[in-house]
Amino acid sequence: MRQATHTLHIRSPGRGLIEFTREVRAWTSAQGIQQGMLTLFCRHTSASLLIQENAAPEVRSDLEAFFEQLAPEDETRYAHDDEGPDDMPAHARSALTKTSESIPITAGRLALGTWQAIYLWEHRHRPHRRELVVQVCGRA
Amino acid sequence: MRQATHTLHIRSPGRGLIEFTREVRAWTSAQGIQQGMLTLFCRHTSASLLIQENAAPEVRSDLEAFFEQLAPEDETRYAHDDEGPDDMPAHARSALTKTSESIPITAGRLALGTWQAIYLWEHRHRPHRRELVVQVCGRA
Amino acid sequence: MRQATHTLHIRSPGRGLIEFTREVRAWTSAQGIQQGMLTLFCRHTSASLLIQENAAPEVRSDLEAFFEQLAPEDETRYAHDDEGPDDMPAHARSALTKTSESIPITAGRLALGTWQAIYLWEHRHRPHRRELVVQVCGRA
Repeated sequence: MRQATHTLHIRSPGRGLIEFTREVRAWTSAQGIQQGMLTLFCRHTSASLLIQENAAPEVRSDLEAFFEQLAPEDETRYAHDDEGPDDMPAHARSALTKTSESIPITAGRLALGTWQAIYLWEHRHRPHRRELVVQVCGRA
Repeated sequence: MRQATHTLHIRSPGRGLIEFTREVRAWTSAQGIQQGMLTLFCRHTSASLLIQENAAPEVRSDLEAFFEQLAPEDETRYAHDDEGPDDMPAHARSALTKTSESIPITAGRLALGTWQAIYLWEHRHRPHRRELVVQVCGRA
Repeated sequence: MRQATHTLHIRSPGRGLIEFTREVRAWTSAQGIQQGMLTLFCRHTSASLLIQENAAPEVRSDLEAFFEQLAPEDETRYAHDDEGPDDMPAHARSALTKTSESIPITAGRLALGTWQAIYLWEHRHRPHRRELVVQVCGRA
């Protein structure tokens, strides 16, 4: 049984869903695991993970609009605004989405469904450099 | 250390929580793992996983009503409606619930709490055939 | 490859985010894993897990207020109220947050980001004794 860990650095241009399936696939393939598990971990509290639809771009803009309505930037609602009006909504959006995800590897490939892609969801308006830890565990 | 992977096919009759704890337990027991981890992965973006209350059926109907209010079918809100008015709410509901879950195995059994059951949450109105990948990793 | 499993018992004084990073770190360190994965599992359906901001206490009170507004105690909305008006909102809040989380271990330490802490989110008003299963899998 082999285990390998790596940190992917993803630059976000600001709020929105940034796909990084290709980076995850490339690193995973290089580890030579035939059967096992890939685990993703997001090291932030104002950005998160989401596995979602890879085809229609409107799904991403609709999800963005849905979350903006769910956790609005309303300064009267929050005590915490150290870093501006998008600070507390970013924590709320992170709480509602994923910090870690696990994806099985079968026959040397991630067992993602046909329509699934892996996204970093940046919840802050300004660009950020985000760290995602990836780990595989399995058999060559 | 042993690792085994399998795909469970679950038929959903349409929107709602479909329990499949029994199917997961049956497959897990057959793998003969005494201590380890079970990981579940949902290969869809309009259906998701939920570990929730197994006793009172009203919890399931109340959760359904809660999510219908949280992500309503309102065509004026969404640009993406390729597959009908339940299409985009299904993606939102999936984003808010789980794509993967991990449950420890101790003394040969899933360490679920007394009141916990494993559900597939179908978010589309029409029946679907859904694929859930299950993987165990541990010692016999 | 080593694997170890343990149950942490955390007492909650009632609704709110209770940090237990220290307890997780202490147990993890004692297992002597240099590289691997820690998985957390919450054995309840009215309490859940959250990895969130560890610095500003207002983030915790703002998250609490955000979730109280998202899943209000409104008895007219729910059929299920066996244990009082906070019963069904507790299930909704659990469904929206985490039952399991996985955190990589690198160089003998949890790969949490600088601002991340591990919380049990108690969703019921009364004090509870909660069970969190922790498991490590990796190399010494």
